[in-house]
Amino acid sequence: MKKYNFILTILAATALISSCGNQGNNNSTGALASSAAEKAYVAPGEHDEFYAFMSGGYSGNITVYGLPSGRLFKEIPVFSQFPTSGYGYSEETKPMLNTSFGFVPWDDAHHPDISQTNGELDGRWIFINGNNTPRIARVSLSTFETEEIIELPNSAGNHSSSFITENTEYVVAGTRFSVPIPQRDMPINEYKGNFKGSLSFISIAPETGRLNLDFQMIMPGFNYDLSHPGRGKSHGWFFFTTYNTEEANTLQEVNASQNDKDFIAAVNWKMVADYVKNGGGTKMATEYAHNVYDEHTHTATSTMKKEVITVDPTEVPGAVFFLPTPKSPHGCDVDPSGQYIIGNGKLSADLTIHSFDKMIAAIEGEKFDGEAYGIPILRFEDVLAGTVKSGGLGPLHTEFDDKGNAYTTFFISSEVVKWKLGTWEVLDRQPTFYSVGHLMIPGGNSRKPFGKYVVAMNKITKDRYLPTGPEMEHSAQIYDISGDKMELIYDFPTHGEPHYAAGCPADLLAPKSKKIYRLDDNKHPYAVTSPDQAKVVREGNEVHVYMSTIRSHFTPDNIEGIKVGDKVYFHITNHEQDFDVPHGFAMIGQNTSELLIMPGQTKTSVWEPKKVGVWPFYCTDFCSALHQEMQGYVRVSPADSNVPLTYSLGE
Amino acid sequence: MKKYNFILTILAATALISSCGNQGNNNSTGALASSAAEKAYVAPGEHDEFYAFMSGGYSGNITVYGLPSGRLFKEIPVFSQFPTSGYGYSEETKPMLNTSFGFVPWDDAHHPDISQTNGELDGRWIFINGNNTPRIARVSLSTFETEEIIELPNSAGNHSSSFITENTEYVVAGTRFSVPIPQRDMPINEYKGNFKGSLSFISIAPETGRLNLDFQMIMPGFNYDLSHPGRGKSHGWFFFTTYNTEEANTLQEVNASQNDKDFIAAVNWKMVADYVKNGGGTKMATEYAHNVYDEHTHTATSTMKKEVITVDPTEVPGAVFFLPTPKSPHGCDVDPSGQYIIGNGKLSADLTIHSFDKMIAAIEGEKFDGEAYGIPILRFEDVLAGTVKSGGLGPLHTEFDDKGNAYTTFFISSEVVKWKLGTWEVLDRQPTFYSVGHLMIPGGNSRKPFGKYVVAMNKITKDRYLPTGPEMEHSAQIYDISGDKMELIYDFPTHGEPHYAAGCPADLLAPKSKKIYRLDDNKHPYAVTSPDQAKVVREGNEVHVYMSTIRSHFTPDNIEGIKVGDKVYFHITNHEQDFDVPHGFAMIGQNTSELLIMPGQTKTSVWEPKKVGVWPFYCTDFCSALHQEMQGYVRVSPADSNVPLTYSLGE
Repeated sequence: MKKYNFILTILAATALISSCGNQGNNNSTGALASSAAEKAYVAPGEHDEFYAFMSGGYSGNITVYGLPSGRLFKEIPVFSQFPTSGYGYSEETKPMLNTSFGFVPWDDAHHPDISQTNGELDGRWIFINGNNTPRIARVSLSTFETEEIIELPNSAGNHSSSFITENTEYVVAGTRFSVPIPQRDMPINEYKGNFKGSLSFISIAPETGRLNLDFQMIMPGFNYDLSHPGRGKSHGWFFFTTYNTEEANTLQEVNASQNDKDFIAAVNWKMVADYVKNGGGTKMATEYAHNVYDEHTHTATSTMKKEVITVDPTEVPGAVFFLPTPKSPHGCDVDPSGQYIIGNGKLSADLTIHSFDKMIAAIEGEKFDGEAYGIPILRFEDVLAGTVKSGGLGPLHTEFDDKGNAYTTFFISSEVVKWKLGTWEVLDRQPTFYSVGHLMIPGGNSRKPFGKYVVAMNKITKDRYLPTGPEMEHSAQIYDISGDKMELIYDFPTHGEPHYAAGCPADLLAPKSKKIYRLDDNKHPYAVTSPDQAKVVREGNEVHVYMSTIRSHFTPDNIEGIKVGDKVYFHITNHEQDFDVPHGFAMIGQNTSELLIMPGQTKTSVWEPKKVGVWPFYCTDFCSALHQEMQGYVRVSPADSNVPLTYSLGE
Repeated sequence: MKKYNFILTILAATALISSCGNQGNNNSTGALASSAAEKAYVAPGEHDEFYAFMSGGYSGNITVYGLPSGRLFKEIPVFSQFPTSGYGYSEETKPMLNTSFGFVPWDDAHHPDISQTNGELDGRWIFINGNNTPRIARVSLSTFETEEIIELPNSAGNHSSSFITENTEYVVAGTRFSVPIPQRDMPINEYKGNFKGSLSFISIAPETGRLNLDFQMIMPGFNYDLSHPGRGKSHGWFFFTTYNTEEANTLQEVNASQNDKDFIAAVNWKMVADYVKNGGGTKMATEYAHNVYDEHTHTATSTMKKEVITVDPTEVPGAVFFLPTPKSPHGCDVDPSGQYIIGNGKLSADLTIHSFDKMIAAIEGEKFDGEAYGIPILRFEDVLAGTVKSGGLGPLHTEFDDKGNAYTTFFISSEVVKWKLGTWEVLDRQPTFYSVGHLMIPGGNSRKPFGKYVVAMNKITKDRYLPTGPEMEHSAQIYDISGDKMELIYDFPTHGEPHYAAGCPADLLAPKSKKIYRLDDNKHPYAVTSPDQAKVVREGNEVHVYMSTIRSHFTPDNIEGIKVGDKVYFHITNHEQDFDVPHGFAMIGQNTSELLIMPGQTKTSVWEPKKVGVWPFYCTDFCSALHQEMQGYVRVSPADSNVPLTYSLGE
């Protein structure tokens, strides 16, 4: 352990030196200001060339940026409550955050991935993982709203997800932390051999995108860090990096860093899927939430599932192999051809590239170097395609362009290194400011990358922007990679803590972006499709207000007969059918957020009036020249009052 | 009413035509792309020249942007829960959102204003209003964190706030919606003469910034829309626009738009403050929350206040006057000299400018045009300084540069018009895209504006950016105003729904921006200032975990002896003392958000374990090369278990 502590000290010192060095070199980035300005600039009235969907990390959301401008166009609420629009507060969206642990208002969203057809981005959906309370979400890329969230049982720290196979057959998720499966009361220090990791394969219905947890592979108790699908020739396989093959359970920074090599787990998911389809696997009783939002009823429902099929990998010979990979590999990336699997050992200086062909040959030759918990270990030399002598420290992630080049981030030496697939030659390197994590090239995780820009997502910000106290946004940097050398063109801050991102050409999404919800397609049970349907109905101490909004009034705008102790449901339908005319709704003293209601949509918030009086509500979205006049009053009487229930507009 | 409906139809049609026209003219903005690119561009490693603090509107927060780049540097949570950092979820910050209505997790934040000394920005604090459940917040401009929130009783739709006097004596807030004061059960249609508006004067302690609701003026039942302080010669006065002087209570878009003129209320607050200081006013029993965050304990406390002093303006002769102003005036802006009070009648084409000197002369001459509810009405002609024949439609707000010019936004004709103070001559006009609300010049609401840029905050976005479904960010535009003509240099989207903004030179804040919290100044009762103080203490079914974090482990990282039914408080102290090294904390299945803990800070989250098992927690902020290893486990046993309480690291 002493030796290892020495290594850690060196790494820490290197980071310090590197960081200090970079800080002194802010202006020697090689960017010619005027040329870079023009490259990053998108003039008023013009549009960005690419969408970038960044994970929000600890915001739980997805943020939508334009490239090359680095402008934030939308924050899509996914796993966290979002007071801005009422997501996770409105009656329609609260079910989206339901789990087997009850209502969970937050998560940690890491790795977005866009749906594919034949290995190319198709722009239908984007998927993202919730790390903390393991979940996968599907977001529509026509409405830019979260449509579905499925919880993952038998998982913990759902990090190595959410990556999809090249025809969007499956979205795949691996557990970062191993746990007892099924969960049970046992001493933590009996981890070794008893804790397990799970790899979840969630099938995606081709037309609707509907998710179904098809099966879970129950794996040795390592930490499954990241993953990527095979593609092209390796389609049908999935690759997962592991660390903590030591199976340590405490002081992991030391104890999980002892082995010179950990593994990349190669999983032939097609073989396992067939096995399950033919009745293989074991049904395990468990509990997980499946939450679906319906665009037509504008409402989510949550269903608790009770069973999952688990697969012991030793029962499916030929389905799972371990590829030794130095050292605590983090990123696990597959090149556009599907031939190369890159393991970025975060405590290694070199990159390890495995060959898919060699792997298949080694498997067919049954040349194993022993096994781990019954899973065959391939020989490092047999599967190695090559090594990139990078000269960097702390490699994390690799993406690809369309010219046969790869780009790898180095956290400790704070740089992006460009190298050649096949020759493993380093072609270029550019500093990042500071401590870069993931990087993203639009389409870089597909068979067809668009190699014009690479975005580096940095973990340390320090002096890159005007300071904002102890807490700052993280920082991204965009490089033009259309030439032989990378050119840094712009720094931009990012909202939340972006990890991975997924990008695509604007043309793929912009033409089909939905502008309004059709009022005549509104199937919400409390919708009013014409103002004369507006009404207020009492059912015991519950009162349902069927309210419509249109510039610039609510119908009704005066309500009497509400009593202290009532539970008032405001069901608001926005009658606008023009693009970009939302209305908002808020009631004074309400113990929830506002509603932000898009044209044609119905949303509901609850108000439990506590005080007698006459209380106003108003439109919270500046909708028109007479927006300030868009208001109403509710009269609240004592609990035992006989004031009759009435409602009106203009009387 | 028929006539008025005709006017509304015209206004709506004009907006439509204007909007369509603008959409067709995206590229004819007059900006030369290359020159504008260089003006808006801030090269990697360089810093923006100005901070812009934008209200988040329905996000409830303040966003911090850089100018001229339009980059978002931070979202400061104020009135809304913020899952990203745990604001409003952590035990320390939940009291910040307490009100007399209970916990209110959201509000609508409109008008930030920076503290001043002698009428110039001093950069100590920024204030902002919560509209919906009336509140005022004070935010530190060294930590960029919300330090105080005070609720306002007898108010509703707290819109005409939060504006401060030129030595930060008071932050002032006027009610937008009149209500019964005190609240009582009464028919809504008895509004006229019975509902009242309140103007709140909250004093600010010079050293600490501590807020105290000094007095409230109980005014006629109009809608108090916006306000600004007098300055220079008019220091001691405050000006409020009103609409709905009709005192209508329904279909306000029609019924509150009948009068040709409404009023600007001029309030001599110094006179009223003296009156109160000398025992004037009436004590009214009421209830409002006062929430204060202490930077040293890292903890907020909420106190419920029970009394407020109200002032009937007719009891303080000479303190309040009404200035007739056409038509439904919205913005109420005072020029840097304090001489001119500009009323922007949103249903008027012309701007009305009142003269402070003429107002004083008219008051002294007692030349009144009747009174309203006992408050003298001055004669329009007696106070008028001039009229700007703008040629625009729907004027809303005016700001000022340092060269004697004013800039007014027009919502309906979508433009910013530059005009000369004193001559009222229109000098320039530039289109905005689309439907501009407020505008902001750094220091524009002070005696010393910095007239280099103006930012227009637009309400309609439509085609300005890549589409993101029905919901989009609002849009801002930045114009270079250093020359004779305004030059549009950049479009940037804005987060939430910015209304007003406050800007200042970077130099005012950047040097004093706090980088860390000193661990040796941490007075949190559950802090551990050294890892060997870490412990786990059971008190009945409450368990307190005193935990420390430093790269890259938690102390302790293994805990046993927790039982189903316990309430576990994780008190996490971040032992880092380097800038920009936060740690995060999250526990699987927790029914709250993460904690994001700055260096030297302690934060607490609660976990009520529901299921037996071994459950992981981890650091949610990518802190170091071995961040992935920064994790721990908690063993949860059945409620009747005898597993002893233990905790450890590395054992």
